Amino acid sequence: MEVTRRLTVGCEFIHHSEIAIPAVFQVEPLSDQKVDIIDERWLLEPEGPTHPYTDLYGNPCRRLMVPAGRSLISYQASVIVPDAVEDADEEAPELTPDQLPDEALIYILPSRFCLPDVLGAEAWSRFGSSPPGYRRVQAICDYVHDHVRFEYGTSTAVTTAEDVHTSGYGVCRDFTHLAVSFCRALNIPARYVFGYLPEIEVTPRDLPMDFAAWMEVYLGDRWWTFDPRNNERRKGRVLIGRGRDASDVAMATTFGAPWLESMTVISEEAVEG
Amino acid sequence: MEVTRRLTVGCEFIHHSEIAIPAVFQVEPLSDQKVDIIDERWLLEPEGPTHPYTDLYGNPCRRLMVPAGRSLISYQASVIVPDAVEDADEEAPELTPDQLPDEALIYILPSRFCLPDVLGAEAWSRFGSSPPGYRRVQAICDYVHDHVRFEYGTSTAVTTAEDVHTSGYGVCRDFTHLAVSFCRALNIPARYVFGYLPEIEVTPRDLPMDFAAWMEVYLGDRWWTFDPRNNERRKGRVLIGRGRDASDVAMATTFGAPWLESMTVISEEAVEG
Amino acid sequence: MEVTRRLTVGCEFIHHSEIAIPAVFQVEPLSDQKVDIIDERWLLEPEGPTHPYTDLYGNPCRRLMVPAGRSLISYQASVIVPDAVEDADEEAPELTPDQLPDEALIYILPSRFCLPDVLGAEAWSRFGSSPPGYRRVQAICDYVHDHVRFEYGTSTAVTTAEDVHTSGYGVCRDFTHLAVSFCRALNIPARYVFGYLPEIEVTPRDLPMDFAAWMEVYLGDRWWTFDPRNNERRKGRVLIGRGRDASDVAMATTFGAPWLESMTVISEEAVEG
Amino acid sequence: MEVTRRLTVGCEFIHHSEIAIPAVFQVEPLSDQKVDIIDERWLLEPEGPTHPYTDLYGNPCRRLMVPAGRSLISYQASVIVPDAVEDADEEAPELTPDQLPDEALIYILPSRFCLPDVLGAEAWSRFGSSPPGYRRVQAICDYVHDHVRFEYGTSTAVTTAEDVHTSGYGVCRDFTHLAVSFCRALNIPARYVFGYLPEIEVTPRDLPMDFAAWMEVYLGDRWWTFDPRNNERRKGRVLIGRGRDASDVAMATTFGAPWLESMTVISEEAVEG
Repeated sequence: MEVTRRLTVGCEFIHHSEIAIPAVFQVEPLSDQKVDIIDERWLLEPEGPTHPYTDLYGNPCRRLMVPAGRSLISYQASVIVPDAVEDADEEAPELTPDQLPDEALIYILPSRFCLPDVLGAEAWSRFGSSPPGYRRVQAICDYVHDHVRFEYGTSTAVTTAEDVHTSGYGVCRDFTHLAVSFCRALNIPARYVFGYLPEIEVTPRDLPMDFAAWMEVYLGDRWWTFDPRNNERRKGRVLIGRGRDASDVAMATTFGAPWLESMTVISEEAVEG
Repeated sequence: MEVTRRLTVGCEFIHHSEIAIPAVFQVEPLSDQKVDIIDERWLLEPEGPTHPYTDLYGNPCRRLMVPAGRSLISYQASVIVPDAVEDADEEAPELTPDQLPDEALIYILPSRFCLPDVLGAEAWSRFGSSPPGYRRVQAICDYVHDHVRFEYGTSTAVTTAEDVHTSGYGVCRDFTHLAVSFCRALNIPARYVFGYLPEIEVTPRDLPMDFAAWMEVYLGDRWWTFDPRNNERRKGRVLIGRGRDASDVAMATTFGAPWLESMTVISEEAVEG
Repeated sequence: MEVTRRLTVGCEFIHHSEIAIPAVFQVEPLSDQKVDIIDERWLLEPEGPTHPYTDLYGNPCRRLMVPAGRSLISYQASVIVPDAVEDADEEAPELTPDQLPDEALIYILPSRFCLPDVLGAEAWSRFGSSPPGYRRVQAICDYVHDHVRFEYGTSTAVTTAEDVHTSGYGVCRDFTHLAVSFCRALNIPARYVFGYLPEIEVTPRDLPMDFAAWMEVYLGDRWWTFDPRNNERRKGRVLIGRGRDASDVAMATTFGAPWLESMTVISEEAVEG
Repeated sequence: MEVTRRLTVGCEFIHHSEIAIPAVFQVEPLSDQKVDIIDERWLLEPEGPTHPYTDLYGNPCRRLMVPAGRSLISYQASVIVPDAVEDADEEAPELTPDQLPDEALIYILPSRFCLPDVLGAEAWSRFGSSPPGYRRVQAICDYVHDHVRFEYGTSTAVTTAEDVHTSGYGVCRDFTHLAVSFCRALNIPARYVFGYLPEIEVTPRDLPMDFAAWMEVYLGDRWWTFDPRNNERRKGRVLIGRGRDASDVAMATTFGAPWLESMTVISEEAVEG
């Protein structure tokens, strides 16, 4: 029987708004992963309805109105995850584009923030002679991990992989956009993932908890997890959304401009009651 | 602004089992309808994880283990529904098969419990000369409503539309299978729906609350709701699943044989706190 | 580089009808398989339009009108297939229902022609003590292959797996329904497949060429091909459709009753020009 | 009975390449439209296989290898289209984001080439006081049609809506990106479409025939066709692909760099034989 751990994941948003504002939140675990749900709860204060739907990529989304006045929107879930670090296989090979499955093809094309076309020469000069396959993707992660310095506030909602490469600063989203761009430039399918990342068995960082972004790369006959920001294999990732880049998966989209007083993210081992 | 009502819907199952048994439950509202969720909660005693997924038809399903011993499995939601009876249009026309949209085609074919082939002669002799369109479907509902007598225990999990027509007894599932079969025999697409049906503004029946089954029929350019068991337009239907017949949408499927001590269904107007 | 062969597959229908009759044909290769298309062509005489769509299961379908009068409808394709018999793995294990992927679950439930409920006792008494996994499925195929005698005209469009088991006669569709039912009774997911089956490197049978039906069974982490009618691994299968049983995948569905003068199926190695 | 016309649509590419190069072509009609196919044919010289699949948006795609040496890749279809200009309804209203159907939501967000965020102030100042609904979208088309001058070679594969707005030059793709951006800035869902556009009952332009791009806008309860480049309602559009912008739908994607000697597009009324 598989050994598991129990996590509490979730988030809380406090807004102020003059009027009610339509919004979409992506904060619930993807069903297409080895994560089971013990208990989950949406809480809106003042109370209001929510409407779930599934986007093009199969990601769970939830529509709701951010109410007028000061409001709290919170989602919390108690989940069960495997007690194991993610798989790796240093021998996993690269495929040529004609060998890829149909559904992987879009993940070698440029997208809004991932620019394999612009970064192609850089990618080939740095990684073109690396041994192909899993090790080459690892070399990309090593480079990005070293080249980019993590710092909040150094990038914005429109920062591209090219911008990050130039500035050398960014957050996990930017690390991921850059590594994804290098993979795609080499015709290796790479997709952007975001979710909850608990600090199980790693030294906690001195930062507020946040959503995390990383990537999945297609090698051999499946997708593999790589995390250019942390550059280590981890336990307990809870995926929320997958897409071509951050423009496909947004934790919160508001059709209007409420003031966000605070956002809190939780992702930690559950304390037994 | 649309006027709405608030309902409490849900269900509770008490099982006894010697061993843990895999199961799938379909009890959560479909997202593809005008129903918003205020609050929902799964409760398992003893506690255990659940795993959501979406079936072929887009219906929400939930996998879980029915635990060993005596167990409670419960789902409850507080939802907002439009305060209006479902639409009707006596002028809605029938389409010929070549005019139907692609996705409606399977709903004129036979399926496990709906047998337009076997009941074809009956359908044509009874309804072949009715005015085509909405009125013909209404004539089918009138006939089925009068011909079949509602009585629990008169049908089983393998009762077909043909059996119901012969016996003249059944539950809402059987009324629906028979009416669906007649529609399909006339090349009118009809699909099976089940869900929660509150008794808003109707005289409560002297029966325990249960899941309800009814049908949707394609006329003109959309699906219309018909309910051959109640044969009246209602407020507040909360759809759980759609399919070709009851074999496609099952409230609970257990891969083993736990003893079901009790099942309770709730579907009622919420009392304001 | 993979070694391949080239096949010609297709079919031709000659109908007589007083009026034009809407129809759906499923005769084109599924895109989700290792089959590439060199050239394909629909031919209708008298000429008429066709409209392609994809059904719930992802199978390619084509709508058209069977014209009034005598008509020819033909589809022919030149395709490339791997020059290899299908994979087998005698060690592939059975999974318990809770271990199955979500999308395999419906393939352990009863469907219109596959009746694991009715044939459950038979299945358990015959195969319950066989070694589980691939070998058990092979034992099912051996039994069905020996128990049922292939003979055209011994079954009809409404013959179920139970009927076949009782009569001991049937065509490839019936062999498949019976074997699928036994698998499902043992909680092994099994789906119905039909397509073109060329007689490459086997002794040709003294029968007119026809569409063939076989099954795919989920063991370990994938679907495996089994063919209870021929009970041998083969080269060059070209899949057209997959579903729960023959009611989900029909070569031709006519919404009316034209007279079918003749149907011809081609599935053979292409002669190099 | 609906009056129809018959068109010949298709395209032909001549490449030179040192090696075989994997490619994806999008040139076949979408099945989700009122277009029926009489006859269609792929032709590759030298001969080679193709593999069809459907992308995330439901668009038909075809994988193939551009052969080494000089090669011809051609697709041609004879199709039937309605003999009517596309619908319009000047009263079709705008919806607020909370009223939109789930699947329309992504079409108000920024995408790679459509930048409602960047062009938001411009959009509001120009069109914010126009009467909302169909007429406002028409005002956007009028503006874009007048503001941008059609000229081949004035834009590239990475030209954004912002670039077009600044330069005032572009091709149909650029006209569409700009109009789509303005719609989205006003929270009106707009999607990019490309396809074949015959010159039926319009004065032929003195340009080589090409693929055309236009947009669909969600108003009331459906999508409406607008064509900011031609700014007139037309007959006989044959859609090939829909997406957020040109990055989602590419006529040809090659994973390598063959030299394209020539590309020819056909889209004209069929001459009766």
